[in-house]
Amino acid sequence: MLIIIIKDMKTLFKNARILKMTDENIIIGHLLVKDDRIAYIGSELPEDKDIDEIIDCDGNLLMPGFKNAHTHSAMSFLRSKTDDHTLQDWLFNVVLPREALLQPGDVYELAKISFLEYLSGGITACFDMYYSPLESAKAAEEMGMRITLCGTYNKDFDMVKKLYRELNEKDGLVRYCLCVHAEYTLGEGELENIVDACHELHAPFFAHISETETEVKECIAKRGMTPVAYFEKMGAFDYGGGGYHCCWFTDEDIQIFKRHNCSVVTCPGSNTKLASGIAPICKYLENGINVAIGTDGPASNNSLDMFKEMTLTYALQKVTLRDPTALPAFELLKMATVNGAKAIGLKDCDTLEVGKKADIIEIDLKQPNMQPINNIINNIVYSGTKENVILTMINGKILYRDGKYLINEDISSIYEKCAKIGERIEKGLLDK
Amino acid sequence: MLIIIIKDMKTLFKNARILKMTDENIIIGHLLVKDDRIAYIGSELPEDKDIDEIIDCDGNLLMPGFKNAHTHSAMSFLRSKTDDHTLQDWLFNVVLPREALLQPGDVYELAKISFLEYLSGGITACFDMYYSPLESAKAAEEMGMRITLCGTYNKDFDMVKKLYRELNEKDGLVRYCLCVHAEYTLGEGELENIVDACHELHAPFFAHISETETEVKECIAKRGMTPVAYFEKMGAFDYGGGGYHCCWFTDEDIQIFKRHNCSVVTCPGSNTKLASGIAPICKYLENGINVAIGTDGPASNNSLDMFKEMTLTYALQKVTLRDPTALPAFELLKMATVNGAKAIGLKDCDTLEVGKKADIIEIDLKQPNMQPINNIINNIVYSGTKENVILTMINGKILYRDGKYLINEDISSIYEKCAKIGERIEKGLLDK
Repeated sequence: MLIIIIKDMKTLFKNARILKMTDENIIIGHLLVKDDRIAYIGSELPEDKDIDEIIDCDGNLLMPGFKNAHTHSAMSFLRSKTDDHTLQDWLFNVVLPREALLQPGDVYELAKISFLEYLSGGITACFDMYYSPLESAKAAEEMGMRITLCGTYNKDFDMVKKLYRELNEKDGLVRYCLCVHAEYTLGEGELENIVDACHELHAPFFAHISETETEVKECIAKRGMTPVAYFEKMGAFDYGGGGYHCCWFTDEDIQIFKRHNCSVVTCPGSNTKLASGIAPICKYLENGINVAIGTDGPASNNSLDMFKEMTLTYALQKVTLRDPTALPAFELLKMATVNGAKAIGLKDCDTLEVGKKADIIEIDLKQPNMQPINNIINNIVYSGTKENVILTMINGKILYRDGKYLINEDISSIYEKCAKIGERIEKGLLDK
Repeated sequence: MLIIIIKDMKTLFKNARILKMTDENIIIGHLLVKDDRIAYIGSELPEDKDIDEIIDCDGNLLMPGFKNAHTHSAMSFLRSKTDDHTLQDWLFNVVLPREALLQPGDVYELAKISFLEYLSGGITACFDMYYSPLESAKAAEEMGMRITLCGTYNKDFDMVKKLYRELNEKDGLVRYCLCVHAEYTLGEGELENIVDACHELHAPFFAHISETETEVKECIAKRGMTPVAYFEKMGAFDYGGGGYHCCWFTDEDIQIFKRHNCSVVTCPGSNTKLASGIAPICKYLENGINVAIGTDGPASNNSLDMFKEMTLTYALQKVTLRDPTALPAFELLKMATVNGAKAIGLKDCDTLEVGKKADIIEIDLKQPNMQPINNIINNIVYSGTKENVILTMINGKILYRDGKYLINEDISSIYEKCAKIGERIEKGLLDK
């Protein structure tokens, strides 16, 4: 494989509308990227001479990339294999028997399809939970995707701590976070070990939490308390963190999250498709909790599209609260960008400001669903689609532009490898 | 304006997957369009020699275009002007004062932005309700869009009957249907006149029906019965028809619709954004009612995107019924295509069969959200977006391909004219 290292690359976006996401204001001007960071934003053209690439935005919008705060990227091979099933049937009869046939190297290949989908939809970072996280990391680094790994499936806790220190100190595309899958799948001593690690590292803690009503009921029956209360009791949230899904929080759970400054990652695409429930997002926000958005994986959603997730998030809140004023557009856009960055712990690529990492997307305002330009933020949230994303830059590198992927690998070869893995797994099931 | 009339045009789509929508089967083969109709579908290449255009689909999917069974296309000027308001505030303080300032010719210009959005998302027909319907008709005919007009706002009932006869006999792109806006906005004698016309013409009848709970409650208080029961009592459904929205039907309303073979047009984008309610779609289907999907207009949705509407339709049913098996993918695709055609009365462009009108879209299966190809129908419904539509043909003419509009008008000029109308209206409000 050919890896080209480009040094001191300067890219100038000129004639842009710029939504920094520090507030709702949109400024008109130019933005310069030097290497991996934003070097200049202003109404005058920068004075730099040796610019490598000039992109005329012609009035289009630049904004921070979307942050997908919960996913299982490598589950791409299960897309459209597991629909219209009950949750039990989905997990035990479709997903788990196939996952048991995954081989080393598969996750590396399978994650790539999802990364392509992120790029085409303006998602510049993902918080990824799956087996063999270092394979996903390798695929992400090679493609240029920003990823934070959940060290869930690694039971070697010394290795977990080593990876946490090494990857987060390196400050590259790949970061690492401490997680367990969920309360209801905890192994003997697993939580205690992870909590010890969290305490040692001063690290936040994440898990699937209160995704279904059954999960909460069974936890109460077994432990006398909700999953949130149990995690708190065990000290898991002593350095913050959060939960994925969070559909069935009690008022006490909300207070626990508030107390520990935890984030809720809502996944309405998955929660509706699997009929898990509707998270009370407005209640979380009213209580000052940071709410981010995740797509969940391609086996349960099945798309990896932040526009779809924003739509479902506002739709479910407005209609169930019977209040069309609930969750206005800018709140949604914050959840999909800066709140996501906060949940994932990405302090350096959340907004468009000088000195921040250049994780930038360009929104085409010249497509009919973005016209007329009465209110750009509302256009993006209420009538936007991923088709409007015409450029995705991560860490200063343009990885997607006008429907083309600027990566070092042939797209059809990625598809073919994934199809072959799927075929091998199906054959393996039949051979059993 | 230049109008080019092309005769005996032959377009061959080769190497395609073809979903006829007569059932779930997808065949592999070739499809020939001669003039405005499908002339051949088969696994061997057709023998025709003088083919004007050959499109190599390279394994992509051809399917019937989506039918948008309820919209107000020309409300494009109000997109993102009216969000996060209560319904009363939305209608009386934002929408109506601006609509009062519309001038002749405005609707003609304003409808075009929405038609472009339909084309880019594979919507090949719309059931359109707005003031000055003949202006929308003119814009549709010029662009090549298929439209059925609701003769709602024309109080000249002789003209309504004349248009109904003339336009429906002509069998062109423009058709005509008898409607009232809603029970709660009926003028003196309006319903009686429209019902007389329905009886004289043996015509179906449509209206916004039971969109909000308030509408139903007020109708019961005023007339002692629901809007559906009132319309039935007045004879409006004697030749069938249906309702837009239909969120709050009683069991008796369902039986009335069943008895008269009426269609429900659900608009979940609008109903969630305005917090109107969740239509019980599965209950309607269980009762054998034809259910179609509409986007509603760009002022209340705000997008005109059948993928978004399919998503909201299944999401709301699965999660509120707490049943992930509810409303499986093919049901959704039927609602978005053949059921829509049935509701609108389009008998000739509902499926891909020889002799049918060529209203065809091509779905790009080589985008990452369509990979791997485990199940194409599920891919379209659960992970598809309008970005996957790479070609839209209406009546045998390709009007959209690879992001470009093949129409006789400059897109930016359409945007500019609409922006100017919006500015004039805002200025008019200030001058008041």
